[in-house]
Amino acid sequence: MSEEQASPRKPTIRTVAERAGVSLKTVSRVINNEPSVLPATRARVLQTIADLDYEPDPSARNLRSSSAYVIGLVYDNPNPYHIIGLQNGVLSACRETGFGLQIHPCDATSPLLADELVEMVQRSRLAGLVLTAPISERPELIEALEQAGVRATRIIAAAEDPGDGHPCVYVDDRDAAYEITEHLVQLGHQRIGFLWGGQEHRSSSERYLGYEQALKDYGITLDKHLVIPGDYTFDDGFRGARRLLALRDPPTAIFGSNDEIAAGVLAAAKSAGMNVPYDLSIAGFEDSPFSKQSWPALTTAKQATEEIARHAARMLIAGLRQDGTAAHNQGFVPQLVVRGSTAPVRPRTQPAGDA
Amino acid sequence: MSEEQASPRKPTIRTVAERAGVSLKTVSRVINNEPSVLPATRARVLQTIADLDYEPDPSARNLRSSSAYVIGLVYDNPNPYHIIGLQNGVLSACRETGFGLQIHPCDATSPLLADELVEMVQRSRLAGLVLTAPISERPELIEALEQAGVRATRIIAAAEDPGDGHPCVYVDDRDAAYEITEHLVQLGHQRIGFLWGGQEHRSSSERYLGYEQALKDYGITLDKHLVIPGDYTFDDGFRGARRLLALRDPPTAIFGSNDEIAAGVLAAAKSAGMNVPYDLSIAGFEDSPFSKQSWPALTTAKQATEEIARHAARMLIAGLRQDGTAAHNQGFVPQLVVRGSTAPVRPRTQPAGDA
Repeated sequence: MSEEQASPRKPTIRTVAERAGVSLKTVSRVINNEPSVLPATRARVLQTIADLDYEPDPSARNLRSSSAYVIGLVYDNPNPYHIIGLQNGVLSACRETGFGLQIHPCDATSPLLADELVEMVQRSRLAGLVLTAPISERPELIEALEQAGVRATRIIAAAEDPGDGHPCVYVDDRDAAYEITEHLVQLGHQRIGFLWGGQEHRSSSERYLGYEQALKDYGITLDKHLVIPGDYTFDDGFRGARRLLALRDPPTAIFGSNDEIAAGVLAAAKSAGMNVPYDLSIAGFEDSPFSKQSWPALTTAKQATEEIARHAARMLIAGLRQDGTAAHNQGFVPQLVVRGSTAPVRPRTQPAGDA
Repeated sequence: MSEEQASPRKPTIRTVAERAGVSLKTVSRVINNEPSVLPATRARVLQTIADLDYEPDPSARNLRSSSAYVIGLVYDNPNPYHIIGLQNGVLSACRETGFGLQIHPCDATSPLLADELVEMVQRSRLAGLVLTAPISERPELIEALEQAGVRATRIIAAAEDPGDGHPCVYVDDRDAAYEITEHLVQLGHQRIGFLWGGQEHRSSSERYLGYEQALKDYGITLDKHLVIPGDYTFDDGFRGARRLLALRDPPTAIFGSNDEIAAGVLAAAKSAGMNVPYDLSIAGFEDSPFSKQSWPALTTAKQATEEIARHAARMLIAGLRQDGTAAHNQGFVPQLVVRGSTAPVRPRTQPAGDA
């Protein structure tokens, strides 16, 4: 101390640490704007730096850590509830670790998507990305990102760990779709319509496979007229249901690949004057807030979107910190939730209104 | 050129610019990771830097521009559709200008919110913030951010420009709520229930004031029993409607302060066996996608959430660049949209089911 007062030598990072009563590492963290420094500590260090008129040696700044301690969430999904669920899950992992979250909705089918993502990561100095379906399901894109040195964790639809060396969280949509179809069959339904979500989403084909397998296991012949292509939207649910209900021999139950589609089916049924669930059973997928709020509430599969996204973000951040926690792939299975929109089939079905 | 080959002097930024065939400013932009450089140009400059083994002088880096060209969107709102609308609007302004968007949902009532936001801006090196209601409506918070040197643009509910020196976009909710109430009165309704949104949102009191003024102008005495406090949620809409419908002299119309509330009213009415709009007219506010998808679709006020948020983000970014474009405050008025959930009052109202 006396030495310091005697010679007005330039303060060093060590001087700052001693004055502030913290470790060198903590001072370094504050200088480099790294997370995991308590706000009060950060304030004390910044005050000490100001008091001492200390100027960090620019070369001492960790230039690689010019990363902003921000991760990116990349998605292409038309469903607000699903997006908010993903965001909330990732945000909760970010809050645990002091990371920020940048969002990047995009066109999953763009041939330039890899360039767009690499450019964004560089420009915004992102530490890594959480990729959601269907972006996460383009293998050549995953390769391109790896080649460019972008760290990424994927959320994908798959019955099992793909074991392809790229980190992921996998959701067994097939199993859950099997359960929904089985529930409808056990209520006595034999003619069960199926409305696809976007075909570029593997979740949609997985849900279809679950539906197909359940029909097969219960000895019900699949009628192709009951299967309608479309996207994960209310409007496609509405249109698809109108087509199904206009059939000469319409279905007694409709399984929409997500809750938005099922909501569209519900609106189509009501606009045709049908009484749900007595004239028509309807099931969705996701357990979005909407599924509880519709009248009647929707039978669906509870997909733990927030938890899934939180796990993916934790994996990514653990990988960035190389502390190994939670860095293994993990699987999730959505759970059947039975509500008022499904009921036993009537002994004799009513003819559907051709509205 | 020959001089360069003769003497192996250290390459300068000028050498890079000449080789890459671009201006000094462009090279500087690439080095500092600034936006508005075409990806192909950026790639060429980076390649030239690598070829020449050019090392930017650290002191030449614009240290203030260690900002990551990212802005933050701060909100505390329970409504997914509203949040996605805000995000999409801000994102479209970001795309125009090459900025990234970081999101920050928070607790608007936290006494430590100013510290939290300043900390986040510093840690993530954000260039500025778009603040939404009710965060944007805490004057002491706006002051604290200004003191800390944080650039921010607000979206607020106000009938006119507050002219308080802080940039904002203001939305005249009062005028739109007046129109909705007037529409109900003109359909013959005299007993019109009102369900508040969160009282910390100025939008909610503005909407109430519009309701109150319309009743007054049409000579209808306001019955306090028809006004119920609550939050901007489906559940509060459901509960509030149950209370109103259980009154000895229930309302013939209910105005929910947003579409989520109105959706809750719709569910409560249906669960009580009521036929909407014949037994009860219902109006919401916001024109969320849900309002078109419910059955019947909701009469509401179309709030141009995306456009409002885009304007706020453009103002912020123009201010950051000091190019003066779109940097003035602007007002928006939501527009009445009449759909199937409102109808003329019946000559004699039916007693409501006490479900």
